[in-house]
Amino acid sequence: MKLHGYFRSSASYRVRIALNLKGLSADHWPHHLRKGEQRDPAYLAINPQGLVPTLQDDGGVILTQSLAIIEWLDETHPEPPLLPGDPLQRAKIRAFAQVIACDTHPVQNLKVLARLRELGQGDAVVTEWAAWANREGLSACEALIAHESGPFCYGAGPTLADLCLVPQLANARRFGVDLAAYPRLLRSEAAAKELKAFADAAPERQPDAE
Amino acid sequence: MKLHGYFRSSASYRVRIALNLKGLSADHWPHHLRKGEQRDPAYLAINPQGLVPTLQDDGGVILTQSLAIIEWLDETHPEPPLLPGDPLQRAKIRAFAQVIACDTHPVQNLKVLARLRELGQGDAVVTEWAAWANREGLSACEALIAHESGPFCYGAGPTLADLCLVPQLANARRFGVDLAAYPRLLRSEAAAKELKAFADAAPERQPDAE
Repeated sequence: MKLHGYFRSSASYRVRIALNLKGLSADHWPHHLRKGEQRDPAYLAINPQGLVPTLQDDGGVILTQSLAIIEWLDETHPEPPLLPGDPLQRAKIRAFAQVIACDTHPVQNLKVLARLRELGQGDAVVTEWAAWANREGLSACEALIAHESGPFCYGAGPTLADLCLVPQLANARRFGVDLAAYPRLLRSEAAAKELKAFADAAPERQPDAE
Repeated sequence: MKLHGYFRSSASYRVRIALNLKGLSADHWPHHLRKGEQRDPAYLAINPQGLVPTLQDDGGVILTQSLAIIEWLDETHPEPPLLPGDPLQRAKIRAFAQVIACDTHPVQNLKVLARLRELGQGDAVVTEWAAWANREGLSACEALIAHESGPFCYGAGPTLADLCLVPQLANARRFGVDLAAYPRLLRSEAAAKELKAFADAAPERQPDAE
């Protein structure tokens, strides 16, 4: 398998964790987002959004969108499960993941921040925009799991929720968000970071890290 | 069941279509987003994001995030299925849905557009921002299904992809996007609009429509 990604892309980071948890290896094909390599025509032919990640398996299967890739991995390589069997718990975990993957990350991604700069907004305003998007999302996530026992987001082991949380917290730190308001999220992050699958997926451990 | 929503919310519209396709009825509880009713403390207690939709079933189950709600409906009320059984097809359909639900709609939602106005951007710039987000997402969607036979996005019947597409096209029209560039998407929309489940879910048919 090939994983087209970028060391700092939090969506790629989610998939790297999933591959590691499943014990699957993939060749990492970096696309330098700040240099615009994701808009190369050869890459657009496999991912028309020009976003990372894209997963290509050895049989020619091409998959895009991190949550869709992760659920595919979970359905085709069920152990260890990233979603439980109970439909209600699955829905809660997916909702938490979507707060991050739908309402948080896309509002602070490189493309949106670049467009704000094109509108004449300066660095301080752009960084505060990204921090705002992170605060909004993380506040909701903190409330969603306030009464979950943990130590992971939903229970004693990692799920799709943790795969989204840990990379998003890395983004939040880059944008200077004060994370002290999110003790429950930090507790889940600490539990996740004990696992090699999470540690090995970290941006600074990737071959294209700068 | 109660569906907390808003007639013009495209995320609520997705869930309305799903309920109709499954033959389920729900009491519609409108929250007037432009008046800020979604930030009422009683509502925030069940949906800490202050977004719609939220689905409450009669047993006290509270579900948020439209895609998570729709997959829960599909898992608990399997007929007719909104996702096929084959993992690869499921992944492709989920990816299409996520292009819309992650990368398109949240970038043009009311909250983001309000923040652009707070930064001093005028109506024309704000509308063009929303149109841009729609063009980016719809162009990718058009490419993703260019070689799918149809008439729906993926095959002969509606799936999660169509539940996301039809409401997003309504948004695109509101922001003045020229849809002539997306003939394959329009073909799926035409097929979907023949179905009562889609027609009955349209914004203008809702009790809170203005």
